[in-house]
Order: sequence, then C-alpha cells, then structure tokens
Amino acid sequence: MKTLEATVDAVLIGDHPESFITRRLEEVNLEFGGIPGDRHFGMIIASNSRQPMYPKGTEILNRRQISILSVEECSQIAEKLGLEYVLPEWLGANLLLSGYSDLTQLPMGSRILFPNGTGLICMGENQPCVLPGEVIQILHGNQPKLAAQFVRAAYKRRGVVCAVERPGKIQKGDQVKILVNDFSKPMQ
Amino acid sequence: MKTLEATVDAVLIGDHPESFITRRLEEVNLEFGGIPGDRHFGMIIASNSRQPMYPKGTEILNRRQISILSVEECSQIAEKLGLEYVLPEWLGANLLLSGYSDLTQLPMGSRILFPNGTGLICMGENQPCVLPGEVIQILHGNQPKLAAQFVRAAYKRRGVVCAVERPGKIQKGDQVKILVNDFSKPMQ
Repeated sequence: MKTLEATVDAVLIGDHPESFITRRLEEVNLEFGGIPGDRHFGMIIASNSRQPMYPKGTEILNRRQISILSVEECSQIAEKLGLEYVLPEWLGANLLLSGYSDLTQLPMGSRILFPNGTGLICMGENQPCVLPGEVIQILHGNQPKLAAQFVRAAYKRRGVVCAVERPGKIQKGDQVKILVNDFSKPMQ
Repeated sequence: MKTLEATVDAVLIGDHPESFITRRLEEVNLEFGGIPGDRHFGMIIASNSRQPMYPKGTEILNRRQISILSVEECSQIAEKLGLEYVLPEWLGANLLLSGYSDLTQLPMGSRILFPNGTGLICMGENQPCVLPGEVIQILHGNQPKLAAQFVRAAYKRRGVVCAVERPGKIQKGDQVKILVNDFSKPMQ
C-alpha cells in the first residue's frame, strides 16, 4: 500500500439553498454524513440521476458526502478551457488538496487521514456533470461555449467523492496522509 | 457496464453472541446498516484489526455489513482443503450466491439488485482471517493443519463485503442482477 501526502488548501461548504456553489471556511467539524449544513450532508440521501438503478428520489446510502479536488487538476481544467484559473467553488468542491496531482485516480477504499485522526474513505471518481460548466459560462460571458466544453475538459480531472469514516475537525493547512488502496491486496 | 445474474442460494444471520458462525433464514429485512440482530449490523461500528489506520475500537463508518460468498468459490476452497464441501455458515457469510463464480473479483462500487428493488453496494474483497479455519479444524478433527491452510485456500475466494444501499426484504431463491462497476467509467 502506497502512502502519499497532500495539503488542505481549502475547506468549503455548499450551504446556499439554491446553488451547488461552495464557499470557503477556515475549518469544519465533519460528522458521520459529512459537513453539517452542506447540501450533500446525510448518512442517507435521495437518489438522483447519478443512480439510475433506483427510481429518482429513493432513499439510499450516501457515499457522496464530500467532494474533493486537486489544485493541479483544477489548473488542467482551466488550461483546457483557456481560462486563467478554475476555482473549486465553481465545481461545488468541499475540499481542495495540493501535492497529489492525480487525485481523480485515487482508488475506491483509499483513506485520507488528517493530523487529528479524522478519516475520509474514497468512494470513487466524481464524474463531471454540466452544472459547473454553466456557472463558468456565466462568469466568463465573453468567451463562448465554455459550458459545452466543461464536461470534456473535466473528464478524469473532476476529483473524487468521499464518505466520512471517522468524524472530527478538519481545517485549512492540514497535512493529510493518503493511504492508496491496492485492489490486489485491498485495505479492509 | 457489464450486467450479470445470480441466484440467492442462502440468506444467513450471525446472531450468536459468542460466535461469528451464521445460520440460515428463509428471508431477512435489510435495513440501513445491514441485518438487524446480526453481529455486523450498524451504520457505525467499532474498528478492529482490519482497520489499523484507527485505534482499535474507534467508531467508524460500517461498510462491512453483509458478507457474501459464491457457491463456486466455496467449492474451490473445499477442494484446496481436501474437503467434500465448505459451508457459508463456517465463514460467517450472510448471503450465498450461485451463478457468478468470480464473486471475489467484483469491483467496489458494483451493485447487487434484488427483484423488489433492494440494493447492496459492493465495498470490496473480503480478506480471509484465521477464524473460519479454526472452525473448520474443529469440525474435521481427524484431518490435520486445516486451520493453518485455510487462509491460503481462501485467498481471493473469500467473497466480498457490501453495505445496504437501499433497504428491503431479501429471500432465498431471489434472482439478483449484478451491475459490475467499471473504473474507466465508474457508476456513481
């Protein structure tokens, strides 16, 4: 099992009732279920179009509690779109890491451990949807077709989603240890 | 995404206070957290030696709610041990499937869907521990070294663990659909 390190560049919450856009906080107290007040908070959540195996609105286990991006992949998305930068806020991220450029490749079952023992478990790659592209388009009105280009630009760069495995406080500046799951000898 | 089918040959519960050995039921009502009364039931559970990244006994998210074996892999373990058969009870399984011989290979994030819509999500390969080998040894006293051989015989044949994604009743004889997760285009 490989162990990597990364830095928490930002902690964000999506607590606007009508938008998935997130905003930065200095710290959050992770509970089982995610970030209290965040739109993706809950051990159980209603299914949506991402889970077509269930009727929309079915109560299902929530594995998509925390959305994480890497600074490096955000830069790559920006480059693809011809923009100076792409902010994690626009993609609805809850956590921005730097120092692990291939975050989207992090296998399911990997752990992200914080200095105080708080732990996240990786629940897989986040596939890009069209919504962030629409936000980016509104913010850059003079540049055409950004919305249409976003999904392709963000493909395999959209980071991962995690569930809270062990609750606790996390904060900007935390150095995290990433235990990379190896399916040939998987973590349990 | 590949879709497979399999049959539920047995539904089992581990409700003995001092043993991990399971016993057969005709049906169970899966809740969020697993099988009520089963020793692995709960959305949250105490960590053990399988999660060395946390101090033993830490409250963590429980992804190991339901343990599943295939008939075919049980036969392979029996063959390796020189036994006529190996029962899922001895391995503490909650579900025995037939028709999908490579169950242990089922990737994390795969779904097992029951006819009534109940859903499990695969949380990865179950790695063999020494306990079932000790049970098998006691049951076959005249054949030496079974306990020592079990872990190797069961390696990559020990099935998978799942969490309940959508609660509901499951029963012996159910035909399940297995949606096999493909990490190159992962289910969400």
